[in-house]
Amino acid sequence: MDFAHTPRARGYLESVRHFLESEILPAEAAHRAHLSAARERPGPWTVPPVTAELKAAARAAGLWNLYLSDPAHGPGLTTAEYAPLAEQMGHSPLAPEVFNCNAPDTGNAEVLLHHGTREQRDRWLAPLLAGEIRSAFCMTEPGVASSDATTMAATAVVQGDEVVLNGRKWWSTGLGHPDCRFLVFMGLTDPAAERHRRHSMVLVPTGTPGVRIERMLPVLGHYDEPYGHGEVTFTDVRLPRDAVIGGPGHGFAIAQSRLGPGRIHHCMRLIGLAERALHLACRRATARTAFGRPLADLGGNRERIARARIAIDQARLHVLHAAWLLDTRGPAAARGPLSQVKAAVPAMACDVVDMAVQLHGAAGLSDDTPLAAAYATARALRLADGPDEVHLALVARLELAAQQEQQQEQEQL
Amino acid sequence: MDFAHTPRARGYLESVRHFLESEILPAEAAHRAHLSAARERPGPWTVPPVTAELKAAARAAGLWNLYLSDPAHGPGLTTAEYAPLAEQMGHSPLAPEVFNCNAPDTGNAEVLLHHGTREQRDRWLAPLLAGEIRSAFCMTEPGVASSDATTMAATAVVQGDEVVLNGRKWWSTGLGHPDCRFLVFMGLTDPAAERHRRHSMVLVPTGTPGVRIERMLPVLGHYDEPYGHGEVTFTDVRLPRDAVIGGPGHGFAIAQSRLGPGRIHHCMRLIGLAERALHLACRRATARTAFGRPLADLGGNRERIARARIAIDQARLHVLHAAWLLDTRGPAAARGPLSQVKAAVPAMACDVVDMAVQLHGAAGLSDDTPLAAAYATARALRLADGPDEVHLALVARLELAAQQEQQQEQEQL
Amino acid sequence: MDFAHTPRARGYLESVRHFLESEILPAEAAHRAHLSAARERPGPWTVPPVTAELKAAARAAGLWNLYLSDPAHGPGLTTAEYAPLAEQMGHSPLAPEVFNCNAPDTGNAEVLLHHGTREQRDRWLAPLLAGEIRSAFCMTEPGVASSDATTMAATAVVQGDEVVLNGRKWWSTGLGHPDCRFLVFMGLTDPAAERHRRHSMVLVPTGTPGVRIERMLPVLGHYDEPYGHGEVTFTDVRLPRDAVIGGPGHGFAIAQSRLGPGRIHHCMRLIGLAERALHLACRRATARTAFGRPLADLGGNRERIARARIAIDQARLHVLHAAWLLDTRGPAAARGPLSQVKAAVPAMACDVVDMAVQLHGAAGLSDDTPLAAAYATARALRLADGPDEVHLALVARLELAAQQEQQQEQEQL
Amino acid sequence: MDFAHTPRARGYLESVRHFLESEILPAEAAHRAHLSAARERPGPWTVPPVTAELKAAARAAGLWNLYLSDPAHGPGLTTAEYAPLAEQMGHSPLAPEVFNCNAPDTGNAEVLLHHGTREQRDRWLAPLLAGEIRSAFCMTEPGVASSDATTMAATAVVQGDEVVLNGRKWWSTGLGHPDCRFLVFMGLTDPAAERHRRHSMVLVPTGTPGVRIERMLPVLGHYDEPYGHGEVTFTDVRLPRDAVIGGPGHGFAIAQSRLGPGRIHHCMRLIGLAERALHLACRRATARTAFGRPLADLGGNRERIARARIAIDQARLHVLHAAWLLDTRGPAAARGPLSQVKAAVPAMACDVVDMAVQLHGAAGLSDDTPLAAAYATARALRLADGPDEVHLALVARLELAAQQEQQQEQEQL
Repeated sequence: MDFAHTPRARGYLESVRHFLESEILPAEAAHRAHLSAARERPGPWTVPPVTAELKAAARAAGLWNLYLSDPAHGPGLTTAEYAPLAEQMGHSPLAPEVFNCNAPDTGNAEVLLHHGTREQRDRWLAPLLAGEIRSAFCMTEPGVASSDATTMAATAVVQGDEVVLNGRKWWSTGLGHPDCRFLVFMGLTDPAAERHRRHSMVLVPTGTPGVRIERMLPVLGHYDEPYGHGEVTFTDVRLPRDAVIGGPGHGFAIAQSRLGPGRIHHCMRLIGLAERALHLACRRATARTAFGRPLADLGGNRERIARARIAIDQARLHVLHAAWLLDTRGPAAARGPLSQVKAAVPAMACDVVDMAVQLHGAAGLSDDTPLAAAYATARALRLADGPDEVHLALVARLELAAQQEQQQEQEQL
Repeated sequence: MDFAHTPRARGYLESVRHFLESEILPAEAAHRAHLSAARERPGPWTVPPVTAELKAAARAAGLWNLYLSDPAHGPGLTTAEYAPLAEQMGHSPLAPEVFNCNAPDTGNAEVLLHHGTREQRDRWLAPLLAGEIRSAFCMTEPGVASSDATTMAATAVVQGDEVVLNGRKWWSTGLGHPDCRFLVFMGLTDPAAERHRRHSMVLVPTGTPGVRIERMLPVLGHYDEPYGHGEVTFTDVRLPRDAVIGGPGHGFAIAQSRLGPGRIHHCMRLIGLAERALHLACRRATARTAFGRPLADLGGNRERIARARIAIDQARLHVLHAAWLLDTRGPAAARGPLSQVKAAVPAMACDVVDMAVQLHGAAGLSDDTPLAAAYATARALRLADGPDEVHLALVARLELAAQQEQQQEQEQL
Repeated sequence: MDFAHTPRARGYLESVRHFLESEILPAEAAHRAHLSAARERPGPWTVPPVTAELKAAARAAGLWNLYLSDPAHGPGLTTAEYAPLAEQMGHSPLAPEVFNCNAPDTGNAEVLLHHGTREQRDRWLAPLLAGEIRSAFCMTEPGVASSDATTMAATAVVQGDEVVLNGRKWWSTGLGHPDCRFLVFMGLTDPAAERHRRHSMVLVPTGTPGVRIERMLPVLGHYDEPYGHGEVTFTDVRLPRDAVIGGPGHGFAIAQSRLGPGRIHHCMRLIGLAERALHLACRRATARTAFGRPLADLGGNRERIARARIAIDQARLHVLHAAWLLDTRGPAAARGPLSQVKAAVPAMACDVVDMAVQLHGAAGLSDDTPLAAAYATARALRLADGPDEVHLALVARLELAAQQEQQQEQEQL
Repeated sequence: MDFAHTPRARGYLESVRHFLESEILPAEAAHRAHLSAARERPGPWTVPPVTAELKAAARAAGLWNLYLSDPAHGPGLTTAEYAPLAEQMGHSPLAPEVFNCNAPDTGNAEVLLHHGTREQRDRWLAPLLAGEIRSAFCMTEPGVASSDATTMAATAVVQGDEVVLNGRKWWSTGLGHPDCRFLVFMGLTDPAAERHRRHSMVLVPTGTPGVRIERMLPVLGHYDEPYGHGEVTFTDVRLPRDAVIGGPGHGFAIAQSRLGPGRIHHCMRLIGLAERALHLACRRATARTAFGRPLADLGGNRERIARARIAIDQARLHVLHAAWLLDTRGPAAARGPLSQVKAAVPAMACDVVDMAVQLHGAAGLSDDTPLAAAYATARALRLADGPDEVHLALVARLELAAQQEQQQEQEQL
């Protein structure tokens, strides 16, 4: 048992942390000011200019696409090695993009890398990995419980050489980005097939006729510009059959393969976000006074700070363990732990951010600190990629089955 | 002991509830659409036209200014009689305004009614009670812990026949309303006076030179238009001396007198808001299915619904009891219970709304339901008018003192 | 709405509180010493002599059988009037017995008063009301989930002039008392009858052949002497048919009728118990110092004290409201609120006692304070008379039904 | 980063687990029956005969004194290697003794091994390591807050060739064991010395004149026989000066050195205890039915099971990480994490056991399952070795200091 990161993970961690502290955090104010000013004007979203500068610097420093496990495209870090880097990126809302490690581009890139045709990789993956274009992922639907994939209503019907898409999707993250060039769409292809062979994943260029962005959706009042979460309709969208990634009926299997690492990334970023909130909370607790004493010395504030430290440290170890299981024993062995962390970490992050908000007074609810947006991010992840309750149900099912098995073994002793 | 409302309270309750259900709830969509469309355009906020229609109807129905305890201005309901009406108004974000019962106009009206000069009452109170103008209350400051009044930095200095105001205030609710015509400002007048005689409350017409609205502040992304919460600076603002309400040095005493009923109103509206959230949660739990069953039959959802019902009912009784104490034994006797409810009810409302959000999935975080705005409202009230922690500290202090007294009595037996 | 107790309730409250403070609390040490010493010796339990003295004094003072609502047997207080007296009795583990108001004798007395024959009332009720004998209630069974009455396995079969009892019961409270003279037994009489007409309630003198006390059961190590909770078997116990209280098949209806007031009594006693714990917590928090300061000034202790005060006050109002509903609108209207308080109050009492334990350090877990036994009492009531979860399920069911009804009404507007 | 245990740790883990399941768990009933029967009789405690048999078997299997890190006395496992073995031992209340790995003998043995004289090691350590005698540790005092060592009132005064002990200690674990032969006593030697050089640790044979066991103390009604927690007075107890372990004034330093590993052991045993409780909960949830369904399918039971699994897994990783830090970076680096786990793990264990109790109904509160005693064990550890609050205060202090340091570094960038 060795809790130390590998030397190369430590090296990247040091570099990413240094880049974060010396380049990204100081740029946050300009980034926020750009977006704030843009909100006052009508018109489409724009990317704050500082982002392009930071991206160039990160790429030049070799801190680019670090999430890819394929050594052909970078250092080829394991999930557990990348995890602490994702945590660092979670400290700042702009960091993931700067390192070209932001969702859902990461998942879309993995999908094209492993399942795309050569042409798809050349045309879409290459500029995505170069950070020149962005993409979106269209899975969740307004009319059904998306955690139950069998209820998906959108269709991707194969007709001769074509695939025809129809349906309404929402919470398609990345849809609002001015550089968003393609969507990955999930739809029902064959309702008669075996349950996990019914759906297809289709690459849809954004300008395809029949694709219509209906609106962008706020999360607790935050639009998460310039990415955003969109509602989009697909009306008789016709694409050549090879737009179906990996072939018809493979949508579910491909989606599953991206979920594991995606959950690790989400959770680690939330741990970074919670660390940032705790940092701000501590700074406020020592800098602000009331009734003649720093807030840190009033009421239960110190206990809350201690509990936040404990919760964050437990969560980090929990996610790292799940990442290690995923790396060393594969997705099946990691299934329970992945659901465990997905059920536990977003709620932990909500609690820590909320504690920090409370210490900041009403300022914590405004946009003068990163806390309100951080709360929106953490709260959304108690729902995105399966609500807490769905993951808890899976954890309970696995637990009851494991206990039953264990009991039977003991009875045979 | 009789938990039944008085006959006249029951009558008003029935009328307000009927008006809410038949007039206000159906108008919510138009109200929301107006504000939504307005957000896309630059320019100052406007009041949705439906508001004026509803106000006229409510006034015609005699459901107007019901919060005023003075029988010269309406039915003269007690705090406990008005409380269930405030609960009803909490069901809808537009209801308080429709009945001319919205904060902070209610508090400002009470202040002018009891402490204003005849001229102030004629010029400002009359149109306020007629619903023709709106007002704001400027107390909280960005640089200090406003729960500790001794730290207030803004000044209201008497110079001959004039009073001169300087300072920066924020979270001044109502400041963004197009009909906002005056502000009630709190400032330090005499630092050498006894602690509760140092401050003055000043009536400031909005157009007075030196008054500058710096910006409006979001709460978890919500601006609460057309009222809003503003940041405003006062730079050498000069007013005639009789703009000081009740005379110099009476600011603190006047502020205290408005707090008690204000806390009851806030808490009862939050109970209505929680009821609305629970109603939406139950509707969703029965209407939405996943894995072949309504959400109500999955996981711990029923327990959460039951706990919400229990929490709401306990909170309502708690606030009604505090209102009854305020009515029958006065502010001193009600001080502990008022802090108790202020510390407990907003957190309860946050929990119930959050539960309803979770049942709605990501839709609950968008603005497609009233839940995201409701969460912002409830969360803000864990800070506004004293953060939870300040009220808990007071409750503990009173408790320890009471227990010590009781013990001494027992020892004398 | 009037939260004041009626004058006669206030009078009794004053008397009971005075008796508690001047007579009972000072006798606790002797009571505890008797039981402690007795534990070191083998042999059956004995009643501490101080109990008889206190009972005589309470009876002489007219503070006797106050729970009976029948004015033929005392003041005839309503449930809401008796409730605050029950709270006072909850302050001390010996108080309920002193006032002849302890469970399950209260419920058994009510049953005999309303459903017993004249002979049963003369032979069993009269000495029970005189405090000369004690009784037990045998309902819960080890092999089945007793919250689901349909699963009851014990039988009470009518054979000609006799009724024959068989089965195993446990958690029969009062079974260990040296003066316990009769048991009230619930059993299945007619499995083919309508669901609520299958069971019978039978009065069983303790010495009846076939009745065998198997053992007494501890609750977190506490036996609650001299009452105790017993396991008892019934093997072909034969009694005359008129031992069936109210006649065969009425068991369920009679049991239901005792539940409502019983839940109020339990909950109010727990509120008294929580008040006692809070009192001890406050005393400890001011008397004990560590790191140079009283515990009250360390960490989150004050917030915990404040939260306990809030939780107790909310719980009290909740239970009083349920009592008032029971009195004024009957058991059907009070059903939801009765389950609400039963689900909420024991858990609240556990939390408050646990907080007091923690402030006392390890002493709080020993028997040097009343806290460990108080915790056992409160914890047991999260299970006795229906576990929390069963009550929550009922509350949720009623809530979903009420919301559905309300929605249908609104849709018809 | 490698979460796999070392091969030798895995080997021992397999052996201990097998021994636990095949030898110890089956013996629990006999062990419990012995203690139960003994409670009915007066007289001193006795060790259940099965213990000696199991100890012999464990020793023969080489599963003995595994906690000792000194390779001269066994395999010399690291703290992190021993930790999973301690977890296994936590599954059964008799397991730690069977493997000669029970507190406080473990701590006393470490103290004598590292700080004892040759004579002390020969006379006391050898039979202790052989499992022939037991010992107790006398630190906590009734009159002071023992978490604040500066308040210790007991004295160990050096007078010429002698040391003279006076004072009252309680919660001296192990004091009731029939084989207890010596106590390790902490007392104040030199009040004028530097704060951490004032106390001495003294080895006191149990029969020494002036040592008087006053009584044994229950924890939530459980005496934890045959070890027990005692109250003991020391009245002019005179011993030769070399009874002072490590010499006068070294008591505090020696006590500190035993705390780190001790906290790891306690926490890991509690994790085993929580696993046992979760196992029983799952068994009950599937075996028991109510309302026609297994408890697992009712209400929020599955969510509770899932949350227990998550809490246990997080806690285990947390403690293992602290153990690894202690092994690799030493006590100073591990100080914060050791307080973190001590503040978090006992509360987690309480919650899991309480959940299991609730699923078992009233049986869970009796002694028919190991749950009531398990709850007492877990609850006591929220107080023993520093209450939660003291550890939280330390964690907060370290956190605020670390954040301040980090901020200063960032400001220098």
